[in-house]
Amino acid sequence: MSVMSIESRPAPEHEALVDLLGVLAHAELTACLRMCADAEAAPDIGVRVALTRMATGEFGHYERLAERIEALGYDPTAAMAPFEEAIADFHDRTAPGDWLEGLVKAYVGDGIAKDFYREVASHLPEEDAALICSVLTDTGQEGFVVELVTGAIENDPAVAGRLAMWGRRLVGEAMAQAQRVAVHRDGLAGLIVGEAGMDLGELGRLFTRLTQTHADRMRRLGLSP
Amino acid sequence: MSVMSIESRPAPEHEALVDLLGVLAHAELTACLRMCADAEAAPDIGVRVALTRMATGEFGHYERLAERIEALGYDPTAAMAPFEEAIADFHDRTAPGDWLEGLVKAYVGDGIAKDFYREVASHLPEEDAALICSVLTDTGQEGFVVELVTGAIENDPAVAGRLAMWGRRLVGEAMAQAQRVAVHRDGLAGLIVGEAGMDLGELGRLFTRLTQTHADRMRRLGLSP
Repeated sequence: MSVMSIESRPAPEHEALVDLLGVLAHAELTACLRMCADAEAAPDIGVRVALTRMATGEFGHYERLAERIEALGYDPTAAMAPFEEAIADFHDRTAPGDWLEGLVKAYVGDGIAKDFYREVASHLPEEDAALICSVLTDTGQEGFVVELVTGAIENDPAVAGRLAMWGRRLVGEAMAQAQRVAVHRDGLAGLIVGEAGMDLGELGRLFTRLTQTHADRMRRLGLSP
Repeated sequence: MSVMSIESRPAPEHEALVDLLGVLAHAELTACLRMCADAEAAPDIGVRVALTRMATGEFGHYERLAERIEALGYDPTAAMAPFEEAIADFHDRTAPGDWLEGLVKAYVGDGIAKDFYREVASHLPEEDAALICSVLTDTGQEGFVVELVTGAIENDPAVAGRLAMWGRRLVGEAMAQAQRVAVHRDGLAGLIVGEAGMDLGELGRLFTRLTQTHADRMRRLGLSP
């Protein structure tokens, strides 16, 4: 990689795509680091390993997104910078209180991210769509998380109410930060919803679809959505 | 993996080897998690990425060590458990005060670990020796760390004294915890120094060799060892 050849400001025709790759890259990098912090707090070493495995998977996604930004001729750091605050805010507002909340956050967060990837892939140039789809393979930890969470609820049914509220808070905070980003990055919103451009109604419908698949995931964990 | 087939207590002939793989696995897992915490504290996103890349590399080592423990028929979690306290103590006593200390810790810790791997590989059965050697490939971040640390010293020469002391503390704490582990795990010490068995004099000579290569590394960072 030659630093000389990297532009920090994307050309207008690349602006929205570099924004999209930048926000996803920052989200994956930060998800990795916050998930590792949750892993460290887990008293059980098996849970710690499972969370760390999911976290390093997220960093693998980061690497592919950052490579693509570089291949387009831009600096990944500059592409990520505009999203630093919204992503940090999301995590600061959703710091898990214990390892169970950490597991639910990892499962729910990873699930929403994948649904979102599937949604946007269809509006992207072929190479970028292929990249986005390539990060959709699961890390094989999902079954393990479902088992642990449903097991914890069996042990203590009161846990279910607390975790259900936690799940609602997670998705609420995610949508709030996503909307905040979309409002400030017109091109990005347009790219996400496709041809319709920056139609905030279409963005709302996308959020509705994401909320529905999120509800299915909550039910798989034994939680009312 | 069938949980049924996994023994938690190694047979006597495997005890030292499972101990060795267990302590290395725990060290790699914990190095990954602590390094991610240091990465999160780094204000510069480039430093954050470099540290996270090193950290996920450590987790890759963990995965290979844990697989080998399972292939021998033992449970990685049980193999790691006896070393939890010594490894946590090392990290609690060496929590970096800033990102520069975090970088030096990552570089120095990774370096000592690799030297140690090289030392023990010669005393192991072929398959285990090959595994140990396979984790010796570098993550490509070493040059980046040297550049950042020497650059910081150029900017502010006073940094060199503080970081040199930090490096001495790191190696001192590492040796103290290693000795503590070796004293309590006779077979492990024997395996590490080879045929000579549990000769603590030989263990001392090993520590001297590790300290010497550590000093070379400190000099490469521009720090007096």
